[in-house]
Amino acid sequence: MELLKQKVIREGIVLGQGVLKVDSFLNHQMDPFLMREVGREFTRRFAGEAVTKVLTIESSGIAPGIMTALELEVPLIFARKQKSLTLTEDIYVEQVYSFTKQVSNDITVAKKFIAPGERVLIVDDFLANGEAALGLARIVEQAGASVAGIGIVIEKSFQPGASRLKEAGYRVESLVRIAALENGAVSFVEEA
Amino acid sequence: MELLKQKVIREGIVLGQGVLKVDSFLNHQMDPFLMREVGREFTRRFAGEAVTKVLTIESSGIAPGIMTALELEVPLIFARKQKSLTLTEDIYVEQVYSFTKQVSNDITVAKKFIAPGERVLIVDDFLANGEAALGLARIVEQAGASVAGIGIVIEKSFQPGASRLKEAGYRVESLVRIAALENGAVSFVEEA
Repeated sequence: MELLKQKVIREGIVLGQGVLKVDSFLNHQMDPFLMREVGREFTRRFAGEAVTKVLTIESSGIAPGIMTALELEVPLIFARKQKSLTLTEDIYVEQVYSFTKQVSNDITVAKKFIAPGERVLIVDDFLANGEAALGLARIVEQAGASVAGIGIVIEKSFQPGASRLKEAGYRVESLVRIAALENGAVSFVEEA
Repeated sequence: MELLKQKVIREGIVLGQGVLKVDSFLNHQMDPFLMREVGREFTRRFAGEAVTKVLTIESSGIAPGIMTALELEVPLIFARKQKSLTLTEDIYVEQVYSFTKQVSNDITVAKKFIAPGERVLIVDDFLANGEAALGLARIVEQAGASVAGIGIVIEKSFQPGASRLKEAGYRVESLVRIAALENGAVSFVEEA
């Protein structure tokens, strides 16, 4: 997705240890027009997948998720990273490890929002080790629903997440794929 | 906003202690069409306020916030409830107390995203005691910017938040105002 790639080039900041900071348009400040284009692009790519619901995880997944849900004309669910006192009904819980924050979180989804047989599109802002996406996929499958695909805004292709998801049989569509973050520069995977 | 009121009547669940659960369309599962209408309504109400940025707080504020930002054609910033390891630059920090969760959180915004003189519209999903909105307003003012207004999806008018914000001089626009949550039922404030 060229618009997104240009945004990464112009505004992304490479920190040490393979970290790309995109807080001017994706992770803290958000560009609503770019988010809408992200939603439209996921909708084009997953148009044939009969998606009934979009599932993401708080917080940075919500904006691309709601725009995708709007375009696909289905609800969005965002998984929470911990239990909320106002969610008292039955919930699915999966543990995921965040390498960025170096903590394990429980991610939770209320059972009533995923029905057996649903086709759930998972959307997230970043794909690195794949922990969050795999946790979300396990929740979908616990519900007796199926994963219609996994839409990622920025894939760090030098980390194992994309391979893990594909080996597990999921269709992964990443809008930008980063080959390396070295010497303060972003290099992209050459598209075929 | 009649559409929202009907949604509260049909899908809202009154729990004890003044808690309204709206997790089927606002706090966990989200209705993207309703969120778009919320964004359009805030845009109508604050059209004359020369808004340059929308500010909200993770997580439930992000969907109404991004839709409002899209309609107003300005960026969205979401305040974080704790520091992230990938945010290393200078940040504004304010402490806010959550009565629902019974904890104090630091809310943070990177300084570079609010410039002096900006007109910032604060958007949030709920207004109860006003702690979050007041914390966000203090951040805007620390930055030398001004609060263009405060847009609330659901106001609990039986709690002191709206009064506190108005006494502090802010223009508050709430799309639904709830007079009471008693005996399992929602009653609304009669609009003049």
